[in-house]
Amino acid sequence: MKIIVVGAGNVATHLAQALATSGEQIAEVWSNQPNNAEVLAATVRAKAITKLHDLDHTADLCLVAVKDDAITAVAEQLRGFKGIIAHTSGSVPMSVFDGFQHYGVFYPLQTFSKTKGLDLSNVPLCLEANSPATMSTLEALAGKLTGNVKSISSEERKILHLSAVFACNFTNHLYALSNELLDANGLAFDFIRPLIVETALKVQHALPLDVQTGPAIRNDIETEKRHLQLLEGQKELKNIYKTLSESIKKSRT
Amino acid sequence: MKIIVVGAGNVATHLAQALATSGEQIAEVWSNQPNNAEVLAATVRAKAITKLHDLDHTADLCLVAVKDDAITAVAEQLRGFKGIIAHTSGSVPMSVFDGFQHYGVFYPLQTFSKTKGLDLSNVPLCLEANSPATMSTLEALAGKLTGNVKSISSEERKILHLSAVFACNFTNHLYALSNELLDANGLAFDFIRPLIVETALKVQHALPLDVQTGPAIRNDIETEKRHLQLLEGQKELKNIYKTLSESIKKSRT
Repeated sequence: MKIIVVGAGNVATHLAQALATSGEQIAEVWSNQPNNAEVLAATVRAKAITKLHDLDHTADLCLVAVKDDAITAVAEQLRGFKGIIAHTSGSVPMSVFDGFQHYGVFYPLQTFSKTKGLDLSNVPLCLEANSPATMSTLEALAGKLTGNVKSISSEERKILHLSAVFACNFTNHLYALSNELLDANGLAFDFIRPLIVETALKVQHALPLDVQTGPAIRNDIETEKRHLQLLEGQKELKNIYKTLSESIKKSRT
Repeated sequence: MKIIVVGAGNVATHLAQALATSGEQIAEVWSNQPNNAEVLAATVRAKAITKLHDLDHTADLCLVAVKDDAITAVAEQLRGFKGIIAHTSGSVPMSVFDGFQHYGVFYPLQTFSKTKGLDLSNVPLCLEANSPATMSTLEALAGKLTGNVKSISSEERKILHLSAVFACNFTNHLYALSNELLDANGLAFDFIRPLIVETALKVQHALPLDVQTGPAIRNDIETEKRHLQLLEGQKELKNIYKTLSESIKKSRT
């Protein structure tokens, strides 16, 4: 299968490299930033392309891994592409490709950073396609990357993406607030790192509601009072503390 | 060293078992619930005790691992204990033991559940003591359990505990909210489990502020609007979404 990759960011990089490792041919990598295109292209032995209309229109699959709000513009410029065109976004509906012959979605539900290696083998790859034949092709390809291939509608994908914002983006921000508190008191983030890992591991075989700990779930009002005193003058942290503690208390009933 | 353990909950269980495994003698385990005392005592070859005044007052160390608000009452009943008395709480000051000869704090900064095994070897053990001699004894003991032994004042410990509430208790609640969303839409929590682990692993070698992703940090207002629409009618989730997104935006500056 001849694949072209549009984009050279985190998702494009991880997918292109995983596909190349699995034996697929990445023919071309596009980015409007020549440097980025070349860096990624070099790691997967592809040709770097900087103009969309220069892309090889005879490829079997075009993976569009650009920012959500750029997908429509990319699609416009690739009109006439005969292979399968698929984007990798959690929140853009498949219908953005209406008018193409073969299209779909190839959404890895994971957080990617270029600087960190990642094993895709248990990452959910959420697929959608405009025909059973296209779905089969995408399934076969996804199956080379992960044991966790799922058929997901655009509506379901929206929910997955929103859930991921809570479980990943908001969670990371709580880590950041925790670090802010430590830092302001001359304490290292290292104190809290093992706790962060264990908190994540605990819910791998349990549901979070069943393993909730802390003052709020115990309705330990004295500890909460002391915590709010420690946060005196830090309006935002105090507000977040109160909001989440109230929400935890409601989950008890 | 002859150790007695007051409490048979999550912290008491993990510490007693780790100490026994490291070769220490756990002489007695106390709980006011006979069953709990016996279950833990059996796993560490100790005697189960259900009345505080029956505890062996010739022990070298009494580890008090009960709920925060029960520590004062326990201390009252153990007046006259000649060994070291230490509690395991993140938020109770060491001074709760004023009047004892040798006392301190033995606080493992981790989240414990009875049903899940746990490697203590990199967990921070935060120590405080009323004398250098007692500190040395606690340090030697803690060093048998972890490579991460720290001397921490009561004031610093309060901050660590509060930071842990953000990084662990609140984080777990975000997992629970994420699951609530998935569940309401017939989607399994399994979709999000690999993401949760990766989010925690990402900050093991980076600072959370440097790896923040998601719509808020990109100031992607369109995606936020769509997410708030999906949460229409769910006042609490909407409020948390807005509160945390605003806080993420502030962190950009």
